Amino acid sequence: MSSNFDYAHKHRDEIVWMSQNTNTIPISPEIEKAIMESVKSREYNLYPFAPGIFGLKEAIFKDLGLSEDEFDCLITPGGIEALYILNRALLSKEDNVIASDPSFMPIHHQVRLSGAEIKELPVYHEPWKLTEEQVKEAVDSQTKMFLLIDPLNPLGTHYSRDEVKAFSEVCEDHDLFLIDDITYRDFSESHTLTNEFFSEKTIITYSFSKNCGFAGMRIGALIAPKDIMKELLPYNTNVLSVNIIAQRAALAALHTKNQWVDNVVSISRKNQEHIKNCVEAIEGAFLPVFPSHTNMFVIDISETEINPDTVEERMLYDHHVFVRGGNYLSKRFGNRFVRTSFSIPEKQCLKFCEVFPKVIHEQRK
Amino acid sequence: MSSNFDYAHKHRDEIVWMSQNTNTIPISPEIEKAIMESVKSREYNLYPFAPGIFGLKEAIFKDLGLSEDEFDCLITPGGIEALYILNRALLSKEDNVIASDPSFMPIHHQVRLSGAEIKELPVYHEPWKLTEEQVKEAVDSQTKMFLLIDPLNPLGTHYSRDEVKAFSEVCEDHDLFLIDDITYRDFSESHTLTNEFFSEKTIITYSFSKNCGFAGMRIGALIAPKDIMKELLPYNTNVLSVNIIAQRAALAALHTKNQWVDNVVSISRKNQEHIKNCVEAIEGAFLPVFPSHTNMFVIDISETEINPDTVEERMLYDHHVFVRGGNYLSKRFGNRFVRTSFSIPEKQCLKFCEVFPKVIHEQRK
Repeated sequence: MSSNFDYAHKHRDEIVWMSQNTNTIPISPEIEKAIMESVKSREYNLYPFAPGIFGLKEAIFKDLGLSEDEFDCLITPGGIEALYILNRALLSKEDNVIASDPSFMPIHHQVRLSGAEIKELPVYHEPWKLTEEQVKEAVDSQTKMFLLIDPLNPLGTHYSRDEVKAFSEVCEDHDLFLIDDITYRDFSESHTLTNEFFSEKTIITYSFSKNCGFAGMRIGALIAPKDIMKELLPYNTNVLSVNIIAQRAALAALHTKNQWVDNVVSISRKNQEHIKNCVEAIEGAFLPVFPSHTNMFVIDISETEINPDTVEERMLYDHHVFVRGGNYLSKRFGNRFVRTSFSIPEKQCLKFCEVFPKVIHEQRK
Repeated sequence: MSSNFDYAHKHRDEIVWMSQNTNTIPISPEIEKAIMESVKSREYNLYPFAPGIFGLKEAIFKDLGLSEDEFDCLITPGGIEALYILNRALLSKEDNVIASDPSFMPIHHQVRLSGAEIKELPVYHEPWKLTEEQVKEAVDSQTKMFLLIDPLNPLGTHYSRDEVKAFSEVCEDHDLFLIDDITYRDFSESHTLTNEFFSEKTIITYSFSKNCGFAGMRIGALIAPKDIMKELLPYNTNVLSVNIIAQRAALAALHTKNQWVDNVVSISRKNQEHIKNCVEAIEGAFLPVFPSHTNMFVIDISETEINPDTVEERMLYDHHVFVRGGNYLSKRFGNRFVRTSFSIPEKQCLKFCEVFPKVIHEQRK
């Protein structure tokens, strides 16, 4: 796989990037302006103000409708590092954590680093997401945490208000930490934060990578009730704070969000329609989840009996379209699907729709 | 203390920043050019190539005269995060680590997070650094690691080739990991990497914050023998890599290093001469180490009986010159000194020299 990334980055400008759920739709000119001002002033010479640049926390709280009275916020180098901190701080050997399979597996690795067990509940079947019954059945006396990725990477499923409420109640009943990974929230038709039902032990991980298109900036946040944040902070991976340019860009993005977010979501929705039409015409391929409430979904190709890794390779090397075979998202189900994101310019998505059927056709022979 | 930082950042452009060993001397126009190109191409939309942008590792190895055959390199969000990773990966409950006091205490906190003990050997006396005898005496059967900060924050001492050799031999004899924190290396008249003598278990933590003036970029690196890197990588705090703009800036800085490094060092040397002359005229104040081989040193004011925190406050609020009281660098000795860095434009250093005697004079009353 790493040689695929090597190749893709060597041909970066010619690649259609649908491999890591990034967003290459232009958002606001204010971003570039904020970056330029920061660079011209050479404020990068100094360590950033440790709690984050003035206004950033406040903008995040406003974005989520949360109160600073109740929650605290730590700016981190991406959502993944927020998860790293909380998994190290809260878990130990006797614990287990409930999560889904498929999932974003680097989080599960973090759980195992703490010596804890991760219970990967299979969701690669209807309704393509966790259910209350499934979670209830999995909870035992050693369960310490429930990882809710909503909407869900890689399937694109989201949870209804009632489902979020039910999960929250399970967590409250069993005194579990409820990790609310909301990375793809803005792409969802509707989204409910878990803190509405179980605020006491909700920990939110927040990202600028997908909605704002800032994957390469490495900026996110960890949001937790004040008393829990006190437990997490000793495990902060970086007491010297987060790249100042990323912080300026993030603040500008939040300040202008109402100017660009609808456009990003509507281009993504249109693109997934294109892909749907494309996939429907391919025998043996189907979309488990449509519409997706994220900027990606999986295309099941198991009936074609083509190896998803081969699809990844041929799409990349023959057509410069980069999608991912499912194996890094699920050991059990990864050989059944490719994952593709679609928060890209429409023209690039049409290229995908042109070449994907060709690749499947060629490999079927 | 945090309110001092709050105040300083609110008056950022009026402050003489001598509080965090940052470097505000302009280096190369190539930096800005590299950043602008990166921003214009919006490559921040994508995750950076996980092993680091092409050429960056190679440039780091070249800077250190190390071979890629023997060592591996992980780009990290600052040197402090390289240390976080290795301290988590290598230490556990029964271990102890040998280090100095004063020191950069956030590293010692990281050691304690792993459950290990940190043996803080006092060095606030002649020769103002660790000695072979001291280290030998401190090593026991549970010692797992030796933390060598060379040159030493905050004192400014450096170690001779013979001293580095002696420490390396102690580590080899007792099979210790030898952490070579070389953050301030470029400011030193001479510097010897420990790998010259004990390559097998040398781990180098590398920073762009001080020499390049990139504290706010948050970029550094972890360098270790290939087999040890395999032990460290599972604990990588951020599998999605480091801010792309910081990486571009870092590469441009290394490519142009011979154009700017002498100027940074010579301005810093001139500034410390100014401060020396200033301090020598103050009764009860002295410089334990001169010349410093870093971009900072401590000013001992214990005989004046003035609280260093008061000096920090008055310098900041009355004169907009930000230095640090020693308490965050040493519980035992911190009340005896202030630490000040001097990799700043000369004019700003002259302002320090004007107001520091005034503050001491006022507080003496």
